[in-house]
Amino acid sequence: MIITDICIIGAGPVGLFAVFEAGLLKMRCHVIDALPQVGGQLSEIYPHKPIYDIPGYPTIKAQELIDNQMEQIAPFNPTFSLGERVDKIERQTDGSYYVFGSDSSLIHCQVVVIAGGLGCFEPRKPELANLEDYEGNFVHYIVKDPEYFRDKNIVIAGGGDSALDWTVFLSDIAHQVTLVHRSDSFRGAPDSAEKVYDLARQHKINLLLSHNLVGLTGNGRLEQLHLTNKKKEPVVVPTEHFIPLYGLSPKLGPIAGWGLQIDKNAIEVNTFDYGTNTERIYAIGDINTYPGKLKLILCGYHEAALMCQSAFKYVYPEQKLSFKYTTVNGINTF
Amino acid sequence: MIITDICIIGAGPVGLFAVFEAGLLKMRCHVIDALPQVGGQLSEIYPHKPIYDIPGYPTIKAQELIDNQMEQIAPFNPTFSLGERVDKIERQTDGSYYVFGSDSSLIHCQVVVIAGGLGCFEPRKPELANLEDYEGNFVHYIVKDPEYFRDKNIVIAGGGDSALDWTVFLSDIAHQVTLVHRSDSFRGAPDSAEKVYDLARQHKINLLLSHNLVGLTGNGRLEQLHLTNKKKEPVVVPTEHFIPLYGLSPKLGPIAGWGLQIDKNAIEVNTFDYGTNTERIYAIGDINTYPGKLKLILCGYHEAALMCQSAFKYVYPEQKLSFKYTTVNGINTF
Ligand SMILES: Cc1cc2nc3c(=O)[nH]c(=O)nc-3n(C[C@H](O)[C@H](O)[C@H](O)COP(=O)(O)OP(=O)(O)OC[C@H]3O[C@@H](n4cnc5c(N)ncnc54)[C@H](O)[C@@H]3O)c2cc1C
Ligand SMILES: Cc1cc2nc3c(=O)[nH]c(=O)nc-3n(C[C@H](O)[C@H](O)[C@H](O)COP(=O)(O)OP(=O)(O)OC[C@H]3O[C@@H](n4cnc5c(N)ncnc54)[C@H](O)[C@@H]3O)c2cc1C
Repeated sequence: MIITDICIIGAGPVGLFAVFEAGLLKMRCHVIDALPQVGGQLSEIYPHKPIYDIPGYPTIKAQELIDNQMEQIAPFNPTFSLGERVDKIERQTDGSYYVFGSDSSLIHCQVVVIAGGLGCFEPRKPELANLEDYEGNFVHYIVKDPEYFRDKNIVIAGGGDSALDWTVFLSDIAHQVTLVHRSDSFRGAPDSAEKVYDLARQHKINLLLSHNLVGLTGNGRLEQLHLTNKKKEPVVVPTEHFIPLYGLSPKLGPIAGWGLQIDKNAIEVNTFDYGTNTERIYAIGDINTYPGKLKLILCGYHEAALMCQSAFKYVYPEQKLSFKYTTVNGINTF
Repeated sequence: MIITDICIIGAGPVGLFAVFEAGLLKMRCHVIDALPQVGGQLSEIYPHKPIYDIPGYPTIKAQELIDNQMEQIAPFNPTFSLGERVDKIERQTDGSYYVFGSDSSLIHCQVVVIAGGLGCFEPRKPELANLEDYEGNFVHYIVKDPEYFRDKNIVIAGGGDSALDWTVFLSDIAHQVTLVHRSDSFRGAPDSAEKVYDLARQHKINLLLSHNLVGLTGNGRLEQLHLTNKKKEPVVVPTEHFIPLYGLSPKLGPIAGWGLQIDKNAIEVNTFDYGTNTERIYAIGDINTYPGKLKLILCGYHEAALMCQSAFKYVYPEQKLSFKYTTVNGINTF
């Protein structure tokens, strides 16, 4: 079990900044995120894009901002559980909380801070009738371990960077890779697309453009993927694994069931400390809502600062909080 | 007369960021500040000190943050009236405002944003009975133009950087410089203090440590400064000008008389748009107060962003505001 002062759900820019503000007040943080890396939307969706409205940065790439924030919080030694979704939180009789990670992490904390952004990123799934029958063993929405596919026959579907990059990468590992895409051009980076076209020309992969998915068949395991081509003629591809990579879309997910006041997929909070309707549970960043709310990174930073001033009383009930400037007080690590 | 969309009173970090957020919404800004330079407290009080709680900057010097913010707003071509205090604002029948600068600037705007921080910086004055009789011509709290003191006999008082630096600088210009300080050591930078000791050793200045001010005398002009030394014995220094440099301390000043709701030297605002009790007048940054308020730079940034969303309706009453990410929309200058 991990014991900490504050458990932060979500390692996006706002959750990370909360670690910093908490650290200034000598509160320790554990951060848990469903994604395998920190950075939330910035690292998952647009790491290489420039942001222009981070105060004091005329321009900064999203991933660079996250890297800087990681450096900023390093003195406070936060701990992380990555690749783990929080499904459940449980209030104890003394007011403290248990936070349960989907991968068996158990965190005990005095305060829960939900910095869950737009929620957990869940795979966009193709609409195929019997998809669920093959999920887990034969249908995969994320490539966790490429080695799993060594010498297998696989079909990848999609037209974005993820589909292109994994097609290139797995062409060396799998026995046979087929890439299926419903359109006749790719959305992903032109040079990745070029690599895929090259592999197809060299017959190292099968490329099926302008093909639509129809269904999956097999006997106890996946055996065939059924498609239609441009002329609506049926096409059957024998395969052992199907990897549809249509991107991840965020869903509020388990958080919706924790008894918090929800309005349009966001948690209602007050604006003096960004507390929810439940004591010791705060919500900051994209996941909260209040009159005037803007889903901006810089707003989440402010929310994190005010939240920490309020959370302090649960971590240090006997102490009076005194407000000090970092310039005057410096950074005192622990 | 200057015609603009938004007149921002105060060129501190928060006023400057308001220029940026306004620019994103195609609103033009004019900024007016009583100090001769932009940057508010950061440039006036602690330009060379590091700040640690600017999100995404593990550390940044105060002046560097201001420089970066100036670069960030440059695309929106803000205009400035520096060295001018705002004493009065006047509502017009159509709802727009005139803003009157102390140095004859007149600004017409649709929205007034008060980003006045702790207020105007006013000099800390020594407690001397007849000080006022000599103010303006013979007693000076700021050295505006060093040449004014060429070949004059002057006394500087104070123990901080400002007193030390001007003593060194004016020793080359004035006929005779005396530096008076009540303590026997200086608060200012050690190397500046060293320069002053050197000049005293070389008899290029008079240095009177552990001396207290008693009074000023003269006939129609300043003639003598009266002091007491460590042993409480009277000391008289003949002089033409007296320059007490005890630092600047901020005062809410004229803003207190504009009919806004004031609580403890701060303007009361709501937290959905940081509006005051008066339509079209907003207050952001250190100068405002609301439940949970923290006088932090990063909080002022958030307030500026929400304020601009609200101010938009007064500048573009016919348009619907649509919210766009800078990453997606870029920076469109005008
Ligand atoms: C293309 C694009 C461009 C953008 N441009 C800008 C811009 O220019 N300026 C700007 O200010 N903003 C911009 N944004 C918005 C900005 O990215 C968000 O405001 C910001 O990411 C919010 O940060 P956050 O920390 O609140 O949440 P997020 O970044 O969404 O992070 C939340 C994290 O919580 C995790 N999580 C959620 N639920 C759970 C759970 N139950 N268990 C475990 N983990 C969970 C998620 O996996 C995620 O990593 C842009 C967004 C996009 C998509
Ligand atoms: C030593 C020190 C260390 C600090 N350290 C930190 C820190 O580490 N982190 C942090 O977040 N904050 C820190 N602060 C606080 C920070 O400086 C303030 O929060 C910030 O300056 C507020 O910005 P502002 O733009 O609201 O106001 P200010 O910076 O105060 O600027 C306001 C401006 O308005 C002008 N003005 C006022 N009234 C008028 C008028 N009537 N007419 C014309 N002009 C007017 C003033 O001249 C001034 O330039 C520190 C402050 C000090 C003094």
